[in-house]
Amino acid sequence: MRRYVFLLVFLVPLLTAQTNPAAVAAQEWRKQHEHVIMDEFVALLSIPNIASDRANIQRNAETIAQMMQKRGIASKLVSVPGANPVVFGEIKTPGATRTIVFYAHYDGQPLDPKEWATPPFTPTLGDKQIERDGQVIPLPGAGKPFDPEWRLYARGSADDKAPIVAMLAAVDAIRAAGLKTKSNIKFAFEGEEEAGSTNLDKILAANKELFAGDVWLSCDGPLHQTRRQSITFGARGISTVDITVYGPRGELHSGHYGNWAPNPAMTLVQLLASMKDQNGRVLVDHFYDGIEPLSETEKRAIAEAPNAEADLMREFWLGSTENAPMKLAELITLPSLNIRGMASSRIGNQASNVIPATASVTIDMRLVKGMDPRQTADRLIEHIRKQGFFVADQEPSADVRRAHPKVALVVRRNGENPHRVSMDLPISQEVIRAVESVRGPAVKIPNSGGTLPDVAERVLGMHEIGIPIGNHDNNQHSYNENLRLQNLWDGIELMAALLTM
Amino acid sequence: MRRYVFLLVFLVPLLTAQTNPAAVAAQEWRKQHEHVIMDEFVALLSIPNIASDRANIQRNAETIAQMMQKRGIASKLVSVPGANPVVFGEIKTPGATRTIVFYAHYDGQPLDPKEWATPPFTPTLGDKQIERDGQVIPLPGAGKPFDPEWRLYARGSADDKAPIVAMLAAVDAIRAAGLKTKSNIKFAFEGEEEAGSTNLDKILAANKELFAGDVWLSCDGPLHQTRRQSITFGARGISTVDITVYGPRGELHSGHYGNWAPNPAMTLVQLLASMKDQNGRVLVDHFYDGIEPLSETEKRAIAEAPNAEADLMREFWLGSTENAPMKLAELITLPSLNIRGMASSRIGNQASNVIPATASVTIDMRLVKGMDPRQTADRLIEHIRKQGFFVADQEPSADVRRAHPKVALVVRRNGENPHRVSMDLPISQEVIRAVESVRGPAVKIPNSGGTLPDVAERVLGMHEIGIPIGNHDNNQHSYNENLRLQNLWDGIELMAALLTM
Repeated sequence: MRRYVFLLVFLVPLLTAQTNPAAVAAQEWRKQHEHVIMDEFVALLSIPNIASDRANIQRNAETIAQMMQKRGIASKLVSVPGANPVVFGEIKTPGATRTIVFYAHYDGQPLDPKEWATPPFTPTLGDKQIERDGQVIPLPGAGKPFDPEWRLYARGSADDKAPIVAMLAAVDAIRAAGLKTKSNIKFAFEGEEEAGSTNLDKILAANKELFAGDVWLSCDGPLHQTRRQSITFGARGISTVDITVYGPRGELHSGHYGNWAPNPAMTLVQLLASMKDQNGRVLVDHFYDGIEPLSETEKRAIAEAPNAEADLMREFWLGSTENAPMKLAELITLPSLNIRGMASSRIGNQASNVIPATASVTIDMRLVKGMDPRQTADRLIEHIRKQGFFVADQEPSADVRRAHPKVALVVRRNGENPHRVSMDLPISQEVIRAVESVRGPAVKIPNSGGTLPDVAERVLGMHEIGIPIGNHDNNQHSYNENLRLQNLWDGIELMAALLTM
Repeated sequence: MRRYVFLLVFLVPLLTAQTNPAAVAAQEWRKQHEHVIMDEFVALLSIPNIASDRANIQRNAETIAQMMQKRGIASKLVSVPGANPVVFGEIKTPGATRTIVFYAHYDGQPLDPKEWATPPFTPTLGDKQIERDGQVIPLPGAGKPFDPEWRLYARGSADDKAPIVAMLAAVDAIRAAGLKTKSNIKFAFEGEEEAGSTNLDKILAANKELFAGDVWLSCDGPLHQTRRQSITFGARGISTVDITVYGPRGELHSGHYGNWAPNPAMTLVQLLASMKDQNGRVLVDHFYDGIEPLSETEKRAIAEAPNAEADLMREFWLGSTENAPMKLAELITLPSLNIRGMASSRIGNQASNVIPATASVTIDMRLVKGMDPRQTADRLIEHIRKQGFFVADQEPSADVRRAHPKVALVVRRNGENPHRVSMDLPISQEVIRAVESVRGPAVKIPNSGGTLPDVAERVLGMHEIGIPIGNHDNNQHSYNENLRLQNLWDGIELMAALLTM
């Protein structure tokens, strides 16, 4: 991150050009109450939060409900059989004509404690990134200040308990300053996002009135790599398939049969190579059909997005990128076809002198608005057929394999719809104004590159906008997840502005 | 194998048209001594024989030396520092003007006992192939007969201890019948063939006089798939390389960076697909340059070789072959380029939503006379460069990876020269006559598809001819290696004929 420091020096004046009164109040309040905020955060992070750990998930949910009740916010746990509860809370505003739902999730990614430098459920301060020579330091005693560059290490610190703590601290700050909410406010804190949000549809569908609102602010994920605030108006969808192609029934000696028995690894690479050109364009027929074009506002947002490519290339040791010279910000508004992994027999010292029996690949295709997961998989399957394959949807029998020159087993895995809210909608513009009044010019992202369920749109018909607060280098989903403290302080101010929108 | 039974019915008259007196004597002797032969075989197979297991390798070598000494054959262990010993034996024949060296190896392929149906070093009988519903049966008691279709399961049963036992049983049979050798006979039993014969050169070079002779009969490998006797006049060489191509420094989220960060698996498949056309022809420039053409005798031998392709396709569940409609017998006289295995990140349920960091492949190229292992690897490397890669020969640094759009690490692994003895030489014709006098019309193979060291030719200037005895379905190099007992019985007769040549 050292390379961004220089850039930040120039951005600081923008970031501090803060005129939003709720944010100003939040900053004042936070400066007086950092220890109180951190104590609440540390207590919440101390409760293990893996979605499959039902007992601790329940403790998390009840703790969050109590955190709201302590503030006089009506709250309850909402669930369906077999699901982890959503913690619901509501601040009713007399005369309000609009309802804003703040979403976050309190569960975290599964982990292996052995990979962590610090115990994942013993929140621990580092004076900087532990993986970059940071040292563990104790929580400062009462009255002693926190350095905003310190990091708090714990599962869920960034993804995604920080927004919960920030929202409730912002509520305290607003009230302390005598400010009022103008909209009805609802909170929806999910308990199994990292397990695929498999029950959120059902929970919302069974409680439509309870969760109904005008806009769903999804507070999850990291800020832009430049540390500028980002606002995300959608997400790519996904369609994932496993493909296996077949050679001989079992591995054959590559000397005795090499040149004669078809090699499934070669069959697979020829198939995969047919799917994309050298510059990254997908060659599957109709792959790009039906994509909803970007609006002028979206194109402008992309043009204005910071160009972090050169830094990222250094960071990732890359000597080239796909689809050059298009910007990353634009490329994520286009679909992709990505090989997640590939396997055939063994390599290197483990390799045998064989013709492998099978070769397999897992592919994910990221989709953008106008594309459908099932239809995209259909198009890929049709492409495979056009390359001369018989496509099976279950393990092909000996007879099937004998009857066709080339056989591919294609198994469809998960699919998620893409979604994108127009930046031109009044609510979108209002959210942008609120955010920028606190955080300066934001990076406005038509859709994130990753995939998020479009459940609020699909089930409740609500617009969904993503407002992250975490640092981009938070190690989410990995070991040593951490939150940079300044990101929490900034998040409190941001939430104060959005709560009073 | 059931499908060959029909064919065998027609071949039996040929196979039994046996006029060679040594072979007739061997058959008689064998019928009276099956238990003695099998006891010796089982005892030898009970000694683990993985080349890296030095203590047991030594036990194997000493046991074989004792087996020869018991028969009055002068024998000794011959080695160089760091090598597993070659067991040498010699039968001097007064007045002989020719020396025949019989080669076999006593070490076996590394194995994982968990994959085996029976313990690999507890020789175990099956009433037929265990992987085709065969049942384990006990060794029959003294005086009880062996069914020749039974299989003896153990590492080394086929590859390659059977020829050792067959040769020594043949010596017993010849002597019992009062027959004499006409040539000087030498035995050379190697102890690290499956580990790449890395020291055989040195051992022979340091003992040229000891091992000198006119023809080196390499008794290794399986018979033709039709069960007809084969004679092999050479072997393909080999050149093996590992290739790794690079994407981002670590795995990246396929949503956040998919479409922008180059995917090394896609880079690799595009590279590999450029190496071969859809029909199996290698597209590397100059790959086929300099290949020595087949003689008329060799072409005739290929034309006369049985066409087992249709049966093999059924057996291997294949719906097509490479380079169709060329015969397998012809294809192995041409070079091949084969993917041994391929790996990038993880697949299926283990797959993550990532762009992998690297993708790797191991390739073997089988070479025929006129090709050179190092030059062939050079041509492949040049091909990789022509596809736009910077080729590194050690792990590329961050700077190297940043400086080049595409980087490939290419590690050269083992290489072996191809070799081929002319079938028209007098010694070749004499070996053919001896073999056919016992086993009927043989399948004469200009070179095997697999690779064998050409060390006898290179170091000692001897002609090398391959005379296998194992069943083709012996699972050599894999789990459940086995020898069909009839192949051992036939092998004893064959060795008797060759010993008295």
